[in-house]
Amino acid sequence: MPPSNPARRRALADAAIELLASSGVHGLTHRAVEKAADLPPGTASNYFRSREALLVAAAERVAELHHADTDRAIEQPASLVDLLTESLFTAATTLRSRYLAIFELRLEAARRPALAAALATLHDTALRVTSGHHEKLGLTIPREKIAALIALYEAALFTLVSMPPESISREYVENMVQVMVYGCS
Amino acid sequence: MPPSNPARRRALADAAIELLASSGVHGLTHRAVEKAADLPPGTASNYFRSREALLVAAAERVAELHHADTDRAIEQPASLVDLLTESLFTAATTLRSRYLAIFELRLEAARRPALAAALATLHDTALRVTSGHHEKLGLTIPREKIAALIALYEAALFTLVSMPPESISREYVENMVQVMVYGCS
Repeated sequence: MPPSNPARRRALADAAIELLASSGVHGLTHRAVEKAADLPPGTASNYFRSREALLVAAAERVAELHHADTDRAIEQPASLVDLLTESLFTAATTLRSRYLAIFELRLEAARRPALAAALATLHDTALRVTSGHHEKLGLTIPREKIAALIALYEAALFTLVSMPPESISREYVENMVQVMVYGCS
Repeated sequence: MPPSNPARRRALADAAIELLASSGVHGLTHRAVEKAADLPPGTASNYFRSREALLVAAAERVAELHHADTDRAIEQPASLVDLLTESLFTAATTLRSRYLAIFELRLEAARRPALAAALATLHDTALRVTSGHHEKLGLTIPREKIAALIALYEAALFTLVSMPPESISREYVENMVQVMVYGCS
């Protein structure tokens, strides 16, 4: 019978995220994940048979946490610029490990088709979720621009998480968002 | 006496770039670089004492190649959208290894202050070079927006090189550039 304790599964995935951020994709092993989550040897491979399954679980957990945050964020009234600035600034500072982890996975996916496929599915979900948010916010951004905006949002996030955290100001982030929303000219 | 054959130095740095793209930062060793460049054992460590020096050399070589390309590109008359679209599309397809390599280095820099410092210097150069290009092209983008535009350009590049190459079309790239230049609304 496969193990099915959701809290333990989440704890393992969270530990995998922290390890990806601190040691890179090479540092992510079943053993290291168990140690970081303070769980007995063998636990990680009970939940995630292969190393690839562990990588996919970390990616899915990041997506789950990210969507929970954005669902919460759009409950508050705010402009698109403010929403994106706040989201990117928090992601690049407080939540930096989470997004460093997903970018480690993105680069690893260039060498690992199964991981690339899992990330593509998560990307489709993000597109659907974001379109839903836009509808809820009453935004009238043309549909073909939404994909480009998401790509730039993700892209901005990569640049921000791979900068030294102390050099990131809210103003710097807002300038990037202003360009995304209103253009640079 | 330190070795000083510039062609050999470039060959080693080019091999390092290919290795970063194909095997990730973990695959980059002096031994692997010599083998890939078809040079005798010891050559790589004669040119680059430490592994960090090798990482920095790869980053500097990417910057050198990139600036040579953009210097050439702006000699031809074209709109900013066309210039950026062509540059990003080529980077994400034909020159994909080069940019995968620099992003491997960016993530590694989050764990390696000396590499982060080298990348920061390259970033300052890029800002200066780009401002020069804008002047030459007669663009009137406000200075504080140039930094944001570069950040988004780099950012878009990351998203593109970490996508499956077959899913990248010129139209997709142009949509991202349109948003950068004219905004999404």
